[in-house]
Amino acid sequence: VSGIRLAGLDGPAAVAELAGGVVVVGCGLIGTSLGLALRAAGVPTYLRDSQAKAAALAEALGAGTTEPAPETVALVVACVPPVDVASVIRDAERLFLSASMMDVASVKSHVQVQIEEQADARRFVGGHPMAGRERSGAAVARADLFQGRPWILTPSPYSDLPARRRAEALVLVCGAEPAIVDVQRHDLAVALISHAPQVVASVMAAVLAPADDDLVALAGPGVRDVTRIAASDPVLWTEILTANAAAVLPVLDSVAAELDLARVVLREASSSAGGAGAAGPLTDLLARGGAGRARLPGKHGGTAAAYASVPVVVTDQPGQLAALFAATDAAGVNIEDVRIEHAAGHPVGVVELFVRPEAVGPLVAALRASQWSVHS
Amino acid sequence: VSGIRLAGLDGPAAVAELAGGVVVVGCGLIGTSLGLALRAAGVPTYLRDSQAKAAALAEALGAGTTEPAPETVALVVACVPPVDVASVIRDAERLFLSASMMDVASVKSHVQVQIEEQADARRFVGGHPMAGRERSGAAVARADLFQGRPWILTPSPYSDLPARRRAEALVLVCGAEPAIVDVQRHDLAVALISHAPQVVASVMAAVLAPADDDLVALAGPGVRDVTRIAASDPVLWTEILTANAAAVLPVLDSVAAELDLARVVLREASSSAGGAGAAGPLTDLLARGGAGRARLPGKHGGTAAAYASVPVVVTDQPGQLAALFAATDAAGVNIEDVRIEHAAGHPVGVVELFVRPEAVGPLVAALRASQWSVHS
Repeated sequence: VSGIRLAGLDGPAAVAELAGGVVVVGCGLIGTSLGLALRAAGVPTYLRDSQAKAAALAEALGAGTTEPAPETVALVVACVPPVDVASVIRDAERLFLSASMMDVASVKSHVQVQIEEQADARRFVGGHPMAGRERSGAAVARADLFQGRPWILTPSPYSDLPARRRAEALVLVCGAEPAIVDVQRHDLAVALISHAPQVVASVMAAVLAPADDDLVALAGPGVRDVTRIAASDPVLWTEILTANAAAVLPVLDSVAAELDLARVVLREASSSAGGAGAAGPLTDLLARGGAGRARLPGKHGGTAAAYASVPVVVTDQPGQLAALFAATDAAGVNIEDVRIEHAAGHPVGVVELFVRPEAVGPLVAALRASQWSVHS
Repeated sequence: VSGIRLAGLDGPAAVAELAGGVVVVGCGLIGTSLGLALRAAGVPTYLRDSQAKAAALAEALGAGTTEPAPETVALVVACVPPVDVASVIRDAERLFLSASMMDVASVKSHVQVQIEEQADARRFVGGHPMAGRERSGAAVARADLFQGRPWILTPSPYSDLPARRRAEALVLVCGAEPAIVDVQRHDLAVALISHAPQVVASVMAAVLAPADDDLVALAGPGVRDVTRIAASDPVLWTEILTANAAAVLPVLDSVAAELDLARVVLREASSSAGGAGAAGPLTDLLARGGAGRARLPGKHGGTAAAYASVPVVVTDQPGQLAALFAATDAAGVNIEDVRIEHAAGHPVGVVELFVRPEAVGPLVAALRASQWSVHS
């Protein structure tokens, strides 16, 4: 997972590589977002879906055309569930004789084996964009879904040069970061950061299913976040989890072991009234959870751990943000993230500036010198 | 959990009930938010914290005054960890002779026992606002934190009428919904919808802690949500979990049983190549997870729900944020929140501007006119 490139293309070369057109098979969130990104770059895009309605919606959104594609397209991308990838690719190979093939499935070893058995592995490079939304379908597609996100590519030893070039071109046109990973390493990664969390969320949510109404009614944002992805499609996820069972199982075994650790402490605490002397392992578990959480990249929470927060109290008046950022800019400090906290109708709020730890001192001094109300 | 009222107060009567003033002990997220809500209603509010800096920040935010409180205040609210409630209440009883007492602790049976042993149970009504944020401290406080949220009250048989009236008044002034629940039922509810999810999130995050960097680097929004609350304070949460161990343990036992069910299916799938005939129980578990998830009440007061997002693609160069906010300011649009999404080492990122829905059109038009790359 680094800046290694398959073919070393730049932006204009990437668009040129796909100028013959791209066929997107499957107009869900990923396929439609892909179409939007390709169309934004001017690449001819042809939409296919076993459900005509889905393709029509994607077309209406500007993700491409449902007209027949010329035989000469450069690339076919199968944006379908893992179990359908090999048959979609096999069919496409016969229709588009000079095209290369990709998929976006979240399980890669399993799909690669099927491709090698059922299709022409030379024309294929597996892929998996690490992007998604909590909702599925074309309606929630976005041209910038992949912007700045990692997009795993799993070229096999069989993958030919055109397939490698076009796969990289597709990722670059979408504004994503190509990450070359072998299929086994990919499957380990998604087991840890996607498949096991899916099971954990579903398990917690399943425990809520039979609970009394008055208890569930009190639920707040915490449990809502923990269980958000439990709303996913059970049939699709059964396919994904069983296809990657060998990698997911050891992660869930670790989850079970950690859970047992918490249960031992709580069994002790509930039997011996007040004797909380043995709670050390629970505190340690919670602290390790905080450490694990802090390792996650990107958005909220990750930033909070990696960067230091400088709270500035501002009044709710026009121009305050522009003035504040002009001041940080004058101080020569790079702002990594921003949060604005204010209650509706309340005249003051807090702007939290997230900066590298070494920038806190200079930033606080510069802002105080300009009369900002800094609370660091 | 219903519309049952302790004293049947309306809004003006609630404010009148607290006109003598409220002392807030503990200027974290809850205490400071409480102060903001009380001040917005014109109730005199006195802030206390063992750390002078925390009280000063809350005061700067407009949550009340750090000046000494008169002996005649109506109510003292202990916004401190569960283990500290009884001693804070006992001390306050001596300073404010005619005041009633409340707490906001998330464990109620345990605190009630300590109050009955160490303080005057007649002057006390336990409370627990079902509101919170992923981050703690005064800086993230909001006057509307409690707006429309349930606020559990656990009056005991000893609680006198003034204590009941003032507890209800506080909840109403904060715009929350009073819910009268006995302490045992409360503790069952929070075990299910708060304490067990906390352990589940921490357990999943703890499994991420020792993982290889290249695997963790691929994490996306799903696992970030599942583990968000794992960032909570380990010591505070050990106190909460052990104090409510008798209610939390049976929930975690159910979680472990569901998890075992998934592990059995995956063990079968990983040993028998391709024989996914026995995956029915996993699909059923995932479906029950979806059903449990669907029972949770809707989001309240969330940024994403209240505001519309306008994504702007920016380059990672000094001065971009200042220029962007100068442009939004020139457009006369108020920015309600900001998120910056950027991949490390990637030269572009997305700044999401959150604005009121009616401001989207004017903002997008103004930014596009100034050549910003807007993706709304």
